[in-house]
Amino acid sequence: MFSLNAARDIINKEISNLILNPEPKELYDPIRYALSVGGKRLRPSMVLMACNLFKDQIDEAIRPALAIEIFHNFTLVHDDIMDDSPIRRGNPTIYNKWNQNVAILSGDVMSFIAYEQLIQTRTEIINTLIHIFNKTAKEVCEGQQYDMNYELKHEVSVSDYLKMIELKTAVLMGASLKIGSLIGGASPSDAETMYAFGKNLGMAFQLQDDMLDVYGDVKIFGKKIGGDIVANKKTYLLVKALELAKHKLREEVIKLLDNQSLDGNEKIQSVRNIYDQLNVRKHAQEMANNYFQKANDNLNKVLVEEKRKKNLRELAKKLMDRKI
Amino acid sequence: MFSLNAARDIINKEISNLILNPEPKELYDPIRYALSVGGKRLRPSMVLMACNLFKDQIDEAIRPALAIEIFHNFTLVHDDIMDDSPIRRGNPTIYNKWNQNVAILSGDVMSFIAYEQLIQTRTEIINTLIHIFNKTAKEVCEGQQYDMNYELKHEVSVSDYLKMIELKTAVLMGASLKIGSLIGGASPSDAETMYAFGKNLGMAFQLQDDMLDVYGDVKIFGKKIGGDIVANKKTYLLVKALELAKHKLREEVIKLLDNQSLDGNEKIQSVRNIYDQLNVRKHAQEMANNYFQKANDNLNKVLVEEKRKKNLRELAKKLMDRKI
Repeated sequence: MFSLNAARDIINKEISNLILNPEPKELYDPIRYALSVGGKRLRPSMVLMACNLFKDQIDEAIRPALAIEIFHNFTLVHDDIMDDSPIRRGNPTIYNKWNQNVAILSGDVMSFIAYEQLIQTRTEIINTLIHIFNKTAKEVCEGQQYDMNYELKHEVSVSDYLKMIELKTAVLMGASLKIGSLIGGASPSDAETMYAFGKNLGMAFQLQDDMLDVYGDVKIFGKKIGGDIVANKKTYLLVKALELAKHKLREEVIKLLDNQSLDGNEKIQSVRNIYDQLNVRKHAQEMANNYFQKANDNLNKVLVEEKRKKNLRELAKKLMDRKI
Repeated sequence: MFSLNAARDIINKEISNLILNPEPKELYDPIRYALSVGGKRLRPSMVLMACNLFKDQIDEAIRPALAIEIFHNFTLVHDDIMDDSPIRRGNPTIYNKWNQNVAILSGDVMSFIAYEQLIQTRTEIINTLIHIFNKTAKEVCEGQQYDMNYELKHEVSVSDYLKMIELKTAVLMGASLKIGSLIGGASPSDAETMYAFGKNLGMAFQLQDDMLDVYGDVKIFGKKIGGDIVANKKTYLLVKALELAKHKLREEVIKLLDNQSLDGNEKIQSVRNIYDQLNVRKHAQEMANNYFQKANDNLNKVLVEEKRKKNLRELAKKLMDRKI
C-alpha cells in the first residue's frame, strides 16, 4: 500500500522524467519550471492512493495523476496573472519571471498536455475520465470567476462563499479521488462516495487555508500572512464577519475594505481585531471540522477493508492538521 | 451532398443553439459573444464536408465540428490579448470589450467546452479524435509562440516561416478534414491524405492572407490593410524580401523594421515599394499556387467517386480566390 510520501515520490519522479518538446523553448521552459518548483503534489497523490484503495497495482493511474497535477499547475499559472501574484511557493511566478504572454500561452499548452496524459490509461474508461475532467475543469474556472467577482462586492453570503470554494478548490480533489478509484476498479457507487470524500476534504482544506492566512505561521504556510485581507479576498472569516457584524461594526468592516490608501499591516491588524471580537475563527474551525467529519463518514461507507483505508485516513488527518 | 454554404448554415444554427451555463455570466457572456460575432466557419464546415465525402449522414460530425470552431475561437481570444489586437472581424475583441482577465478565463473555458463537444460522437473513435486534437492544439500554440518570437528577430528564413504557418494555421485545417473523414468512416490512409490536403490548403490560405494584408481590398479582407507590416509580423513577403534584398536594400528593410517612430502609413508605403522592387508578390503567389496544386493532388488520391469531391473542390477554389 502506498502512503502519501510514497505516492508523492512516484509523482515527483514521473514529473522529472516527463518528456516535453524541446522547441520552442520560450513555450516549454516555463512549463518545465512551473512543474519543477514543487508544491505538495497532493492531488496527483490522491489519484494514486484512491486507485490503490481498490487495487494493489497503480501503474494505470500514474499518467492520469500527472494530468491532474499539470492541470492544477495550469490553473495556478493563469490565476497568478489574473490575481497579479508575483510569488508562489517562494519562487517568482511565470508571468513575473518571463512575461504575461508567455504565461498565457504556456498555461494553454499545459492544459492540452494534461489531456494527453489523462488518456494514457485503460481504454475502456477513457471516456468516463474525460467527462469527469471536462466538467471539473469548467467548474474550477467558474470558481475562479466567482472569486474575482466577490473581490469587488461586499454582499457575499456564506452560501455564496461555500459554493465558490467548492468550485475553485473542492471539486478537483473530488475528481482526483474519483478518477483514481475508477482506474482502480471501484464500483460506480464507491467512486461517487470517493468523490464526496474528496470534495468534503477539499472544503475543510480551503477553510483551513483561510484561517492560516490570518493565524498561520509564515514558515509553515509558505505565503505572506494576511495576503487575503490585503487583497479583499472573500474568505470564510470575512464573509462570516460581514454576516455577524451589525450596525457600526459592519460599517467599520466595509470602511476597511473600501479604504485603498490604508497600509497593509494596519489593515491586517484592524481586520484581525474585528475577527477576534466576532469570534469568527471559532466558527471557521467548526465549519472545517464539520466538513472533515462528513469526509470521514464518506470514507467509512466505501466498501473495502478498513486496513486498505489507513493511508487515506492519514492523508485526511494531515490535511486537517496542515502538516502538509 | 453538403456544399460549403449548407455546412456553414448547419454550424451557425448549432452554435446559436449551443447551451452554455448561465452563471457566472462574467465567464459565459464573453463566450457567447466570441462565438456569435461570426467568422467564416471554415474549419467546422470542413469537418462536416470531409465526413460527407465518405458518408451521406453527417450527424455524428456536428459536435466535433463545433469543437474545432470553439477551439479556433479560443485561440483567437487568447491571441488577441497577446497580439494586443482591439478589433477582430469589425468587432471589439474580448479583452477590449471586457478586460484581460475575462479574456484569459473565458478562453480557458472555451478550450474545455471544445473537448466536451469533441467526445459527442461514435464511442469507438473518440480516443483517436482526442489524440489528433491534443497534438493539433499543442502545435497551434507552438506556431503562435514562433510567430511572437519572429516579430523580434530579423533572421527568419523562408523555411522557418513555412514551419511557423504550418503549425499556427495549416495543421488545424488538416485536423479538421482528418477528424471529419474518420467520423465518415474513411480508411486510415484516406484520412491521412485528407490531412495532407487540409494542411496544403492551409498553407496556400495563409500565403493568400499575407498577400491580402498588403494588396487586399479592405472591404473584402475585413481587416486594416498593412497591419502585418506595422506590427513587424513575419509574412512570406517580408521573409522573402529579407532573403532577396542585398547590401543597401537589405539595410533599408531592417531600418524600416527597427524604426519605431515611423508613421504607420509611411512604413506601409515604404515596405510595399521594396516588395515591388523585389517582386516578392509574384514569389508568394507562386508558392501559394504550389501548395494549392499539392492540395489538389492529395484530393485526387482519395479513394471515393469524383462526384463526391465536387463540394470540397469548390471550397478549395473559393479559398484560393479568397471569395470567402
